[in-house]
Amino acid sequence: MPTAASTTPTDITRTAVASFDGCDNERLRRVMQGLAQHLHAFATEVELTQEEWEAGIRFLTETGHITDDRRQEFILWSDVLGLSMLVDALEHAAPDEATESTVLGPFYVPGAELRAFGAAIAEEPAGEPAWVHGHVRDVDGNPIPGAELDIWQNGDDRLYAVQNPDAPENHLRGRFHTRDDGGYAFLAVRPVPYTIPDDGPVGRMLAATARHPWRPAHIHMIVRAAGYRTLATHIFDAGSEYLESDAVFAVKPSLLREFVQRSEDDPERPAGVTGPWWSVENDLVLVGGDQAGEPTDPGRTA
Amino acid sequence: MPTAASTTPTDITRTAVASFDGCDNERLRRVMQGLAQHLHAFATEVELTQEEWEAGIRFLTETGHITDDRRQEFILWSDVLGLSMLVDALEHAAPDEATESTVLGPFYVPGAELRAFGAAIAEEPAGEPAWVHGHVRDVDGNPIPGAELDIWQNGDDRLYAVQNPDAPENHLRGRFHTRDDGGYAFLAVRPVPYTIPDDGPVGRMLAATARHPWRPAHIHMIVRAAGYRTLATHIFDAGSEYLESDAVFAVKPSLLREFVQRSEDDPERPAGVTGPWWSVENDLVLVGGDQAGEPTDPGRTA
Repeated sequence: MPTAASTTPTDITRTAVASFDGCDNERLRRVMQGLAQHLHAFATEVELTQEEWEAGIRFLTETGHITDDRRQEFILWSDVLGLSMLVDALEHAAPDEATESTVLGPFYVPGAELRAFGAAIAEEPAGEPAWVHGHVRDVDGNPIPGAELDIWQNGDDRLYAVQNPDAPENHLRGRFHTRDDGGYAFLAVRPVPYTIPDDGPVGRMLAATARHPWRPAHIHMIVRAAGYRTLATHIFDAGSEYLESDAVFAVKPSLLREFVQRSEDDPERPAGVTGPWWSVENDLVLVGGDQAGEPTDPGRTA
Repeated sequence: MPTAASTTPTDITRTAVASFDGCDNERLRRVMQGLAQHLHAFATEVELTQEEWEAGIRFLTETGHITDDRRQEFILWSDVLGLSMLVDALEHAAPDEATESTVLGPFYVPGAELRAFGAAIAEEPAGEPAWVHGHVRDVDGNPIPGAELDIWQNGDDRLYAVQNPDAPENHLRGRFHTRDDGGYAFLAVRPVPYTIPDDGPVGRMLAATARHPWRPAHIHMIVRAAGYRTLATHIFDAGSEYLESDAVFAVKPSLLREFVQRSEDDPERPAGVTGPWWSVENDLVLVGGDQAGEPTDPGRTA
């Protein structure tokens, strides 16, 4: 027992998967059948109880009700379960020479102000100045002039401008273009670790499983150039806490950068900077359209 | 590529699963690690794209926003993906002699009126009369006196009383006790097929995948008796449409019953019945506490 006379878990899984056989959109059929198959495999493997299923329904319902135009708790679930990073990795496999991508995160707002080479992105005091500079190149080392860097970061109050109704709209964000040699520079602030929103269902799950809600210090950027694949990535502060336990798994070793401490009398001090400052070098390598490639998983069919 | 130098999908899955290693609630750790593992296996196997992930987030968000005190779209997802039936089967494995369970569904309301042996459950005209009768027994064939049957069904307008604000509160539902010989009887109406709520995200998925939203005709019952495991099941009308394609996969062959057509002058005609009527015999077998047993999957550890 169960025997042939009763309807077994295996029967139910087979029937649920087969219910999509008639779907003539081949891709949709594959996704829905994969979803049903793996959902059933999960429940069967852990022997999910009725009570646990009810708790799951309650968590999903609360997630739906806390989600609005300013808060996206479903994306947060995807982030803290590592799904967001996985989807990024599946889609953005690239040659080793290329800069790795990472999560976009919920705080990106398009349309930041276009700023001059070396300009500051902080529109009010937000932490210790950090001079970020480097070159944008292709995988063969050729400079890419006219590439656009779209930058955003949090300040030392842990907040992005979009989270703070009192902050100027363009505070701690800006767009920059590379020069003829592919070079770029801007004046950021040294970022600080912060917590993902942890006052909802995701935060309760993290607390119940002894996980913390912190992300290590980082600066976001999207790099765009005609003929190249758009890159969304971070500069992670190599000296930050939480690099080994980012709540959303976005850290990749290749994205760590040293923030080098500089003195007030350093001859390279950027204009307008007083007191101690930091500098960080960050070269970026973009993948051309024909080099984008695909991952080479053995199971891959296309 | 990807090679050791980049962060692979496999790395991300391993890190996400390991993030729960510190959870000292062993059961919660197993469930969350299983969830992360299978969610990642799904995305990796179907090579889920960023665009599909976004569509998934949109569907979940809409599901959250349509769900309220009267509409539970997350349970509907669980139903149409076969998860609800699977969880029922995992929890309620039973000896072959026992009556099989099936989904509770969203239309059960506790506290139905207690009615006399043979009484009608329809409080206003709702379809052709159907005399439902049988015995409640244990797996050894001994009658169970004093068992409670909690009955609910839809009428020929396809609606349950709880869906129709104009219907009397106890319309098409009632509780009955078995007599000393374990016998019970009540006057129902012949049920008709109906659609699950299909004006939301679940309905859009069904339409996109060429699935229909219909359920075959059935009568719900919960059977309770001291010392026995409570049984939630259906009587399926063996002559109904959609038995092979129930939108929620609740049909089990052992639950099909013939509705036998009877004439007005049949001497067994129940009191108060005029015109043609139907009868259906439905014996029920309950599992005692010590016979409840557990499924015998080879992978089972407890």
